[in-house]
Amino acid sequence: MTTREEAARLDAAGPATGWRERFALPEGVVYLDGNSLGALPVGVADRLVRVATHEWGRDLITSWNPTAAGGDWISLARRVGMRIAPLIGAAPGDVHVGDSTSVSLFKTMVAALRLRPGRRVLVVEPSTFPTDGYVAAGVARLTGAELRWCDPADPAASLDDDVALLSLTHVDFRTGAMYDLPGLSAAAHEAGALVQWDLCHSTGAVPVDLTAAGADLAVGCSYKYLNGGPGAPAFTWVAPALQPDLDQPVQGWMGHASPFAMQRDYEPADGMRRMASGTPPVLALSALDAALDAFDGVTVADLRAVSLSLTDLFIRLVADRLPDVEIVTPREHERRGSQVSLRHADAYGIVQALIARGVVGDFRDPDIARFGFAPLYVRHVDVLDAVDHLVAVLEAGEHRDPRYAVRSTVT
Amino acid sequence: MTTREEAARLDAAGPATGWRERFALPEGVVYLDGNSLGALPVGVADRLVRVATHEWGRDLITSWNPTAAGGDWISLARRVGMRIAPLIGAAPGDVHVGDSTSVSLFKTMVAALRLRPGRRVLVVEPSTFPTDGYVAAGVARLTGAELRWCDPADPAASLDDDVALLSLTHVDFRTGAMYDLPGLSAAAHEAGALVQWDLCHSTGAVPVDLTAAGADLAVGCSYKYLNGGPGAPAFTWVAPALQPDLDQPVQGWMGHASPFAMQRDYEPADGMRRMASGTPPVLALSALDAALDAFDGVTVADLRAVSLSLTDLFIRLVADRLPDVEIVTPREHERRGSQVSLRHADAYGIVQALIARGVVGDFRDPDIARFGFAPLYVRHVDVLDAVDHLVAVLEAGEHRDPRYAVRSTVT
Repeated sequence: MTTREEAARLDAAGPATGWRERFALPEGVVYLDGNSLGALPVGVADRLVRVATHEWGRDLITSWNPTAAGGDWISLARRVGMRIAPLIGAAPGDVHVGDSTSVSLFKTMVAALRLRPGRRVLVVEPSTFPTDGYVAAGVARLTGAELRWCDPADPAASLDDDVALLSLTHVDFRTGAMYDLPGLSAAAHEAGALVQWDLCHSTGAVPVDLTAAGADLAVGCSYKYLNGGPGAPAFTWVAPALQPDLDQPVQGWMGHASPFAMQRDYEPADGMRRMASGTPPVLALSALDAALDAFDGVTVADLRAVSLSLTDLFIRLVADRLPDVEIVTPREHERRGSQVSLRHADAYGIVQALIARGVVGDFRDPDIARFGFAPLYVRHVDVLDAVDHLVAVLEAGEHRDPRYAVRSTVT
Repeated sequence: MTTREEAARLDAAGPATGWRERFALPEGVVYLDGNSLGALPVGVADRLVRVATHEWGRDLITSWNPTAAGGDWISLARRVGMRIAPLIGAAPGDVHVGDSTSVSLFKTMVAALRLRPGRRVLVVEPSTFPTDGYVAAGVARLTGAELRWCDPADPAASLDDDVALLSLTHVDFRTGAMYDLPGLSAAAHEAGALVQWDLCHSTGAVPVDLTAAGADLAVGCSYKYLNGGPGAPAFTWVAPALQPDLDQPVQGWMGHASPFAMQRDYEPADGMRRMASGTPPVLALSALDAALDAFDGVTVADLRAVSLSLTDLFIRLVADRLPDVEIVTPREHERRGSQVSLRHADAYGIVQALIARGVVGDFRDPDIARFGFAPLYVRHVDVLDAVDHLVAVLEAGEHRDPRYAVRSTVT
């Protein structure tokens, strides 16, 4: 059994030294919900104040151009995209940031259908985070395409000559299970289809190399492991070879070749800039830009090493101390993201009782307790503390408190 | 001729007393570009800090629910919409906020076509802010509809039995000319079409009563006269009678009847909540919510009275002192928004020379100098100062400075 001293030694000796200090975490909280909302990086509040008071309040409209205070809002989305790119194996200019994940998925799914005009099937996995399926159903209804649900255990079995796009979520939001991104990308290509990856639960914690995998499209949010703040804008990537033919449906002025020429007719900008539609969300992009400072000097390999060490420890301790609790997240490293999910009939009560003890995970209907291990700020000692509390909750029956009989939280 | 004393007396006596103090305007600047980017309201920076440090940083994921610090992020978009509603003649629950203006226009245009299934023409005005036309062209191409450009002087002449939607911008971004919203709404209905109003250059400065006009749909941005900050989210309104059949194309989890049930299949929420797609942009919505405090206790009638008094004064002074400069904005109150545009071959140089003197307007290709009069913070003394500087620039030939031979600004 790992002792607290051993855990503290792992924290001190590993690559994570100094990472946690980049976050403003509340005292006495073990935060294991960074897979839902990342913690606050230390520089974000100051950056928001500076953007509001100096760039907006004082320099006003001139901040669209570069100014002494910073400004250059017109290139902000692109600059933020360049900082996300190395985390997903993308070239710097190939990541667009803006819009929500759902809107981004809508754009890329329609664009994918247009890139494969002879095919009309979108393949989506039915246990994915629901917005992916909702958007796909909406796209299918709008374009006359067909939505085909695949077997989560074998998405490639649904591929045939009619499939335009295989759209999968890299790491499952419920179970933390991870797909073989290169393997399924190759399978899609073998069938003549494009492949799109939803990286919401991967980016910033799990290695992703879209270029090496030869993937075609990707979308991801920035408020989980990227710590961009609640509702932070999503990013979109499209393989360079597809960009010249990229044709997304929400043609807006910021995706125009010459937005300020104010021409009547649309002409798409070159490259990924054509993925833009409206005026960029400058406050949110600025917060995200500051949040990405937490990744300065951090390699994806080190993130992954820390993440696996944390989830390995959590899995081992739960298996040892609570043998009756089902661990639904795969044990194999190559099939695991950066969260561990437990199945229990009283999962809702367990999560609530843990929150009351300062250990924040979350619940997913009907019986899943999720624990995210954001490698930038979760420590091995936190894992020990979390399991101690979990054991105490179950031993004392705190999860059966009548207060938890009615489920009230929205997240 | 109005003297500075008379102007100061107008400012002190009018309904605007105390309004300007709600903004953090830089010293020595006459800001006449609130029609492009509204000034910073005083409470916004503090609110951003509180949301970042308390709601996000300290309370983390619990802030989706109501907390001692505020939180309740899940209802934030709706609460902000309720504050915009009285400015546009809408019932409180009928305004959705989120996404960009371009994405919002995309959703409402597709929805409008679905509400008029037997018709396939979208009528748009060709000199409108370009994103409206770009989005309409994209929607037409995606859905098989037809985009018909109307005569800006007579949009109703383009209406016939094929028209599903007449989509117009209430106040023109270049000229400041305002359409007859009730009259054109009635004309659209007479032809069996729906009418949509882009209120980007109206809301917060010009009276709008969508309910009284019997309009069908409306979209507007919140970073101009609503002062929500650069790239602040847009709002959408749909007439209550149309909401039960409202079917927008970007089906996302936040528009689902039960988002946290995480069901596989999409089922739209009741009312305007179905206009939502992705996770709401909490930081931007919080800034906008704080910005709307500047409207507390302010009536639309008072805003309009101040706005007209300011633009009347500017027009009169320019006409008196610079008779050779063409004023393109209509003189009739009922055809004027809250900006005044001047046409001049050296408009770019004029705007730059004025900025160098601390009078901030902006330039629109090829020959328009725009001056916005945001009634919440522009004063009659500012109008006098602006015209004094304009006269001085033209007399001294400052607008012909070789520095202004190359146009470099992006806005």
